[in-house]
Amino acid sequence: VLDEFQLITRYFDRQREAPGVAVGIGDDGAVLMTNAAFDQIQVIDTLVAGVHFPRETNPADIAYRAVAVNLSDMAAMGGRPLWMTLALTLVTSDGQWLQQFANGLFEVADAFDLALVGGDTTRGDILVVTVSLTGEVERGKALLRSGARPGDTIFVTGSLGDAGAGLQCLQGHGEDKFLRQRFLRPTPRVEIGRALIGKASAAIDLSDGLLGDLAKLLSASSVGADIDIERLPLSKSLRANRDIATQRHLALTAGDDYELCFTATQDAVSGIEGITAIGSVTDGSELICRQGNTIVEIEHSGYRHFQ
Amino acid sequence: VLDEFQLITRYFDRQREAPGVAVGIGDDGAVLMTNAAFDQIQVIDTLVAGVHFPRETNPADIAYRAVAVNLSDMAAMGGRPLWMTLALTLVTSDGQWLQQFANGLFEVADAFDLALVGGDTTRGDILVVTVSLTGEVERGKALLRSGARPGDTIFVTGSLGDAGAGLQCLQGHGEDKFLRQRFLRPTPRVEIGRALIGKASAAIDLSDGLLGDLAKLLSASSVGADIDIERLPLSKSLRANRDIATQRHLALTAGDDYELCFTATQDAVSGIEGITAIGSVTDGSELICRQGNTIVEIEHSGYRHFQ
Repeated sequence: VLDEFQLITRYFDRQREAPGVAVGIGDDGAVLMTNAAFDQIQVIDTLVAGVHFPRETNPADIAYRAVAVNLSDMAAMGGRPLWMTLALTLVTSDGQWLQQFANGLFEVADAFDLALVGGDTTRGDILVVTVSLTGEVERGKALLRSGARPGDTIFVTGSLGDAGAGLQCLQGHGEDKFLRQRFLRPTPRVEIGRALIGKASAAIDLSDGLLGDLAKLLSASSVGADIDIERLPLSKSLRANRDIATQRHLALTAGDDYELCFTATQDAVSGIEGITAIGSVTDGSELICRQGNTIVEIEHSGYRHFQ
Repeated sequence: VLDEFQLITRYFDRQREAPGVAVGIGDDGAVLMTNAAFDQIQVIDTLVAGVHFPRETNPADIAYRAVAVNLSDMAAMGGRPLWMTLALTLVTSDGQWLQQFANGLFEVADAFDLALVGGDTTRGDILVVTVSLTGEVERGKALLRSGARPGDTIFVTGSLGDAGAGLQCLQGHGEDKFLRQRFLRPTPRVEIGRALIGKASAAIDLSDGLLGDLAKLLSASSVGADIDIERLPLSKSLRANRDIATQRHLALTAGDDYELCFTATQDAVSGIEGITAIGSVTDGSELICRQGNTIVEIEHSGYRHFQ
């Protein structure tokens, strides 16, 4: 049985030097050196066992996903990730479990040059993982939800609906490794977010489904949109494993894709790879879905807690 | 029934201007303006219902305490608190509960000029409150655990053991309003922490009990200590409500006081109010407790999770 101190030193404190970190894990707080030429971005997101991932998910995937969803928020702001703190509520302290958790955490952290600088471990009746990230962005250049202008094109990164189908796989409905991984280990679009600085007029990340999240961006920008569901980017795996109606339903309404949705002029982003235009910003207030020339009604609620 | 968005806007988003906050609640992340003349301090701490406070604790006190324990970490680093993010895992969304929680949160936040800049609310089978604070401290001047030198005097702020007795009261063992409040609403010693900049050689906050926390400071500084238990500052309420053995036992080993323990020369801190010298730093490696001229053995384990 490990106490908190041993647990932290054994699994989480790698005693590595990292840029800007004067004091990391091991004191009452982290001491960090900021750069005043940049604004700072802070994001925080919690994953709860049984709510945000199946309870039997393996610990490396849980940790990976907890960091990745925060990196996705950072990407949606155009930020460069720097530092991470971790608040971990554990039901038991199982060494093997913790080792795997730490492996998943550092796998994604290392891939994005993110340093773990502090944290807190507590005991509770359920596994709760809260990750907080700090990053930086060029002064005044953060990508907000509120800058979309009528006439802008609406883009998304990657492909949509995969994570929704992947969650179905995890719940026993079909099996496809690619889709499952898209749920378990989302790809934070940090590089694209950085490339959008000074180019995109607004951005949001897709955690609750395209329709729900795009609606938030439109509302923050006081604009409407017209999107064409035939233009939604769908992966080969999704197309091979689900019928067309399900593909589109998942792409529009399932959460957890952690792709970016952003607005920009076509010209501004012409050099950026891995993005797809799906419609345009209007001066209305509605989000209109079109299939070719026909307007279609999509039932959706987004992903809402407490309903 | 409220969804997450409504919940945040109704109870937590006050849309106030705050220093350094370019974008607060409502986007994918907060945008903050840092000052490069200062180092940044980040702390994070979680409270779990039934582990860190009795489940029936009223929501205003839970919120107050969750912020206060983080402010205490900030105080132990000598930091000036600036910004807060909140990750709240709720069992249900009860409007009255949330309103009281928000009241407690903002009561302590306002008292310390702390702005809530972001957060995440999730659903779970147990109430978990994680607060993350960012603050600033003069470049290179953060108070660490590691600077204590032989010959330094050891000080504590306020009085010790009250919170331990207060928790006993909450659990039905006696009743004293002052003691109960000392557990529910600890007083973060932010002002004293700021006053110790450039004066204290090392500092830690007392969350797990004096003996356990002082041992961490000594270990980080590679020194020993000699303290006199007759010099421990005990409140009038503690002395009135507990026998002398219990008073001392609580003062030495009960957690949750959130006072500061620090080392300094007597001269350096002679102008600071509300502190008590309890012993001195030695060039040994032991923490020796003395009662007058007799060395006493105190059984203690500190407060350790997972034991």
